[in-house]
Amino acid sequence: MPARIGKYTTRLDRSPSVVSFASVVSKKESEGPLGACFDVVNQDTAFGEKTWEKAESRMQETAVQKALEKGGLSAGDIDYIFAGDLLNQCISSTYGIRATGIPFFGLFGACSTMAEGLALSGLFVEGKLAERAMAATSSHFCSAERQFRFPLEYGGQRTPTSQWTVTGAGAAIVGEKGQPPYLRHVCIGTIEDMGVTDMNNMGAAMAPAAAATFSRFFEDTHTSPENYDLILTGDLGKVGSELLGKLLREKGYNLEGRHNDCGLMIYDLEHQDVGAGGSGCGCSASVLCSAILTRIREGALREVLFAATGALMSPTSVQQGESIPGIAHLVHISSQPEGGC
Amino acid sequence: MPARIGKYTTRLDRSPSVVSFASVVSKKESEGPLGACFDVVNQDTAFGEKTWEKAESRMQETAVQKALEKGGLSAGDIDYIFAGDLLNQCISSTYGIRATGIPFFGLFGACSTMAEGLALSGLFVEGKLAERAMAATSSHFCSAERQFRFPLEYGGQRTPTSQWTVTGAGAAIVGEKGQPPYLRHVCIGTIEDMGVTDMNNMGAAMAPAAAATFSRFFEDTHTSPENYDLILTGDLGKVGSELLGKLLREKGYNLEGRHNDCGLMIYDLEHQDVGAGGSGCGCSASVLCSAILTRIREGALREVLFAATGALMSPTSVQQGESIPGIAHLVHISSQPEGGC
Repeated sequence: MPARIGKYTTRLDRSPSVVSFASVVSKKESEGPLGACFDVVNQDTAFGEKTWEKAESRMQETAVQKALEKGGLSAGDIDYIFAGDLLNQCISSTYGIRATGIPFFGLFGACSTMAEGLALSGLFVEGKLAERAMAATSSHFCSAERQFRFPLEYGGQRTPTSQWTVTGAGAAIVGEKGQPPYLRHVCIGTIEDMGVTDMNNMGAAMAPAAAATFSRFFEDTHTSPENYDLILTGDLGKVGSELLGKLLREKGYNLEGRHNDCGLMIYDLEHQDVGAGGSGCGCSASVLCSAILTRIREGALREVLFAATGALMSPTSVQQGESIPGIAHLVHISSQPEGGC
Repeated sequence: MPARIGKYTTRLDRSPSVVSFASVVSKKESEGPLGACFDVVNQDTAFGEKTWEKAESRMQETAVQKALEKGGLSAGDIDYIFAGDLLNQCISSTYGIRATGIPFFGLFGACSTMAEGLALSGLFVEGKLAERAMAATSSHFCSAERQFRFPLEYGGQRTPTSQWTVTGAGAAIVGEKGQPPYLRHVCIGTIEDMGVTDMNNMGAAMAPAAAATFSRFFEDTHTSPENYDLILTGDLGKVGSELLGKLLREKGYNLEGRHNDCGLMIYDLEHQDVGAGGSGCGCSASVLCSAILTRIREGALREVLFAATGALMSPTSVQQGESIPGIAHLVHISSQPEGGC
């Protein structure tokens, strides 16, 4: 029986397992510090397709297929798939998942999508609504640039706070309690808006949402950062990560030595010219569904809080003078099915 | 305990109730056959806002607030809200729900969003993941036209198969079994693609998805159209409804005299110049959350199948030569908590 603890957190007493996971990236990501961790690396950023949007769909499809294959499963073994992405009307997910025939819940959570889908998958297994559920998402540097900023051919200058959209995808299958990693808690975010209007500083727009979700989770579970090996955000980058640390210190929580961000892990910020770090749905998805889940499975990481943040804006809303609201969903992932923190 | 029956359908044995619901529309919808059924009618299609997108957000916010108010509830009584819309990055939902502080799952299901959110709300209550969950969505003729077709000022000609996006919003709150309407089954759709590429004939693109979901549901539940008073689709319009009838007849199911479509109910097709009928997320949302749920509550309708369909495309995917995939999610809503069909 799922237990709601506090206002925002649900304890997953049945400890659903992540039974399989897979990641797909392209050239630049393969040259970063996690290069060796990804399942599929395609040096062709077009993934053999004629448009960037189709390339992104192909990536998401590949991640889904690879996760099924690694788990010895077929599409028919999955009750539901939760997926979404950054593109208008989430077309990478639609066309990427079309051929699977899996009952499909379309999501829009911007860069929080991996956490949203993973949380829903965990909740569905916990609530006995599914035997197995899957979460998938993707992003592509080139499709994101032309949709949210400028066509690549324009060669626009980038500001120092801007981030680099990861060309990557990830997929994770959640099932009944079996092997680690186990999903132990989820904490679903609310829309937070601190009035940031700079489309080139998404980290700052999203950090308040992450701070809100983390502090609610610590409060609901009566735990603190010291109870976790790794407190992982999705794509706050350098600027957003510093702001998150500051906001949580103000609330009495010290993340020092425990926090990392997928956007800081996937690239070498000194040598890869990626501004304040990686971003996009595919950033947290590809890092989680490679290095992180593998390390938890092997016991090298034991208690991990994974919170992906999304900036829930569009170019239209920004042009109309609206501020950029953020959201952060958290999943507590553990190497143990019970006990621990 | 939720019972999966067949491959696609879940029986909701706890029979969650729709505890409150509300609808908001504008001038044109108030002049249609259901004009008297809506909770809020604003003759100003701008809803007091400076842009069409902000008007749509305001509508969705109003629907959420009205549903809370009618149910004697406050935002703090709702565990989760599921919402999405048609606009790029679903900004009507983000900005419409921002102020509520309710934990938020962003959806993208195009015009299937009301059914997707209602199904998720029902499943969450059934699986004891929520005491109360809410579904909301909206669409606006003017924001949809300029995003998917042409700016209004262009005065583009409309083809006979094209539909008219409803300016409307709806919200429904699902809770523990109490009063009718009761949610009895859900059947989640898969992405269906019959190769339709005409952006001005969405009904035809979506009808195969509706046919797939209905026939799976009938098969899973061992029922047939005769077991239901009303088989209601979201926005297939005239062309799509005819096609649905044809596709289901081929599978041995006769909808005659039982099928209706929210897009055919909301406008007077003879006198309101709306082409093949209404469409948009707000079409099924405003019709369901007014006339339909009221009639089920009063017992005038007893067994209703509500299936909203979505066309999961974007102008970009169509320009790139992709066909238009559809999806349909079904919720069986009844005036009785058990028995019946």
